[in-house]
Amino acid sequence: MKKITIASFVAASFLSNVVVADDLIKKATDAGLKPIPNKTEELNKLIDPKGELTPAKIELGKKLYFDPRLSKSNLISCNTCHNLGLGGADTIPAAIGHKWTANPHHLNSPTVYNAVFHKAQFWDGRSPHLADQAQGPIQAAPEMAAPSELVVARITSIPAYVEEFKGAYGADVNISFKKIADTIALFEHTLVTPSPFDAFLQGKVDALTDAQKEGLNLFIDKGCATCHGDVALGGTMQPFGIVKKYRFADVGDFKGDKNGMVRTPTLRNIAQTAPYFHNGQLWTLEEAIKEMGSIQLGIEIDDKEASSIATFLHALTGKKPEVIYPMLPASTNDTPKPDAK
Amino acid sequence: MKKITIASFVAASFLSNVVVADDLIKKATDAGLKPIPNKTEELNKLIDPKGELTPAKIELGKKLYFDPRLSKSNLISCNTCHNLGLGGADTIPAAIGHKWTANPHHLNSPTVYNAVFHKAQFWDGRSPHLADQAQGPIQAAPEMAAPSELVVARITSIPAYVEEFKGAYGADVNISFKKIADTIALFEHTLVTPSPFDAFLQGKVDALTDAQKEGLNLFIDKGCATCHGDVALGGTMQPFGIVKKYRFADVGDFKGDKNGMVRTPTLRNIAQTAPYFHNGQLWTLEEAIKEMGSIQLGIEIDDKEASSIATFLHALTGKKPEVIYPMLPASTNDTPKPDAK
Repeated sequence: MKKITIASFVAASFLSNVVVADDLIKKATDAGLKPIPNKTEELNKLIDPKGELTPAKIELGKKLYFDPRLSKSNLISCNTCHNLGLGGADTIPAAIGHKWTANPHHLNSPTVYNAVFHKAQFWDGRSPHLADQAQGPIQAAPEMAAPSELVVARITSIPAYVEEFKGAYGADVNISFKKIADTIALFEHTLVTPSPFDAFLQGKVDALTDAQKEGLNLFIDKGCATCHGDVALGGTMQPFGIVKKYRFADVGDFKGDKNGMVRTPTLRNIAQTAPYFHNGQLWTLEEAIKEMGSIQLGIEIDDKEASSIATFLHALTGKKPEVIYPMLPASTNDTPKPDAK
Repeated sequence: MKKITIASFVAASFLSNVVVADDLIKKATDAGLKPIPNKTEELNKLIDPKGELTPAKIELGKKLYFDPRLSKSNLISCNTCHNLGLGGADTIPAAIGHKWTANPHHLNSPTVYNAVFHKAQFWDGRSPHLADQAQGPIQAAPEMAAPSELVVARITSIPAYVEEFKGAYGADVNISFKKIADTIALFEHTLVTPSPFDAFLQGKVDALTDAQKEGLNLFIDKGCATCHGDVALGGTMQPFGIVKKYRFADVGDFKGDKNGMVRTPTLRNIAQTAPYFHNGQLWTLEEAIKEMGSIQLGIEIDDKEASSIATFLHALTGKKPEVIYPMLPASTNDTPKPDAK
């Protein structure tokens, strides 16, 4: 009978930790956590505040996002490092780009999914929005390495692209580098991934398992939501290594913005985007949770707690928009040639 | 009136070159050109002779095709060099792979579209079919650089992949490297692209423009169909540089198979897959056509003729199967880590 007694005790102990769902929704909301709106009008306020999104622009943005001819070599597209099939990231510690160059600061590629909800882009938050962000990696020497004039020359040399820009923006469109990046960003604005957590916050009390609810409760109690809040569960500038120096702080030379602040990553789809931290040094959610507790909150999160919070984080894995792989228009005799050098 | 006279003369001259459509269909058929069958049963004889294709296997093969974790670095997938959005190829002269290594023989990546119709795979034809071919680039050091055991370890460490293999092949499936490559090949078997040329051969006489018909007629008259025949319009082993040495023969060290034979490329979607020839040294169809005339047929094809044949070749640009970009299952703590070294 001993086994049964232990099992009963474990079950009772487990249940006692599960707060009533309605209370937990209120607690999460009070802690600043917000769902991805499930009403189109509310969602559009977040992803399309200027009313710019049209099917033609989104489709064109998708093509550009997947087109490696936006890189100097013709080999690297936005999707190389922000792979929509891999949680919007690349599965490696630090980005590798043109000529197999590692990111000089040893920075990990953040996911593109739900990046529209970030208050700032890049790990140092230097960019206010995706339209600005998209201009960076295309031109950066260790990433896509394409001068803006080259990108414009490639795209405008392809009549089918020119026609698509006209169709999206009107016959007098100026196909500038900014316009190209803006269009990519509009596609990225559509990359939002509603998850079981969102359904739960919206009142579907059984959208989370009891174990996930317990993890959410712990996530809030431990203070994680302080920095990982709002719709993105992250995406704002925060001090880093508040209590203690990050264990792998010396891998790469990244020190945050001029005030040492770091843009927190979104926790949405985090179970799909290992490795973790700005320099990609931790490979499991549990390790990352414990490190965060130690360096940011000054608490020790034990194995069982880390596992519980990780269980909740899996409930942030969302449904990805269906993407039909784009057929890209062929280069012409006038298209500037690839250059792998 | 002079202008009108000239215009009339040009029109008459043009029309005189257009053979009657029914005769041209017969002429093309007699020359050994064959359409992609439009009847499922006939098509299946070519793409699924063993009756292996199922939706589950095709979907799994698609995921593997797009998964960069089949490479040592986690950065290169089959789709990197055989990009389904770019005519099934990569737009660069010679393939670039792991550690940005150029193909040591300076070989151009052939298209994956319609490769199922090839009688041999690789430029030297060393592989009899796609299931065998797919094993090569994954392991090759300058390509994906992944030892077969690493590929198996990666895939089998991901429970969602294991489940998909069981769903596709049965619970007792052995997820070997061969099985992984075989599954990729089954997806590739579905990558066939019916074109206006096929509709024409199947009796839709207005599927080609008059200019395309004229180009087809010239294509046959010049002797191009001798090597570029059958369903693939290519894909067989042929002598290369018969009459004259290829102008760029010294770029790279490729000399064909042990008898100097080279696998002809398919001409399907050729307008989308510049640059041309095994070492990717020619960027326009017209140049490639003239070079072929010179070195293979011992004839001079003039600018006007080359342009006419190129016009026909555009009619080989086919409709690509719609591919929904696959969402790949996340790596686990047991998944062997990426290695960019």
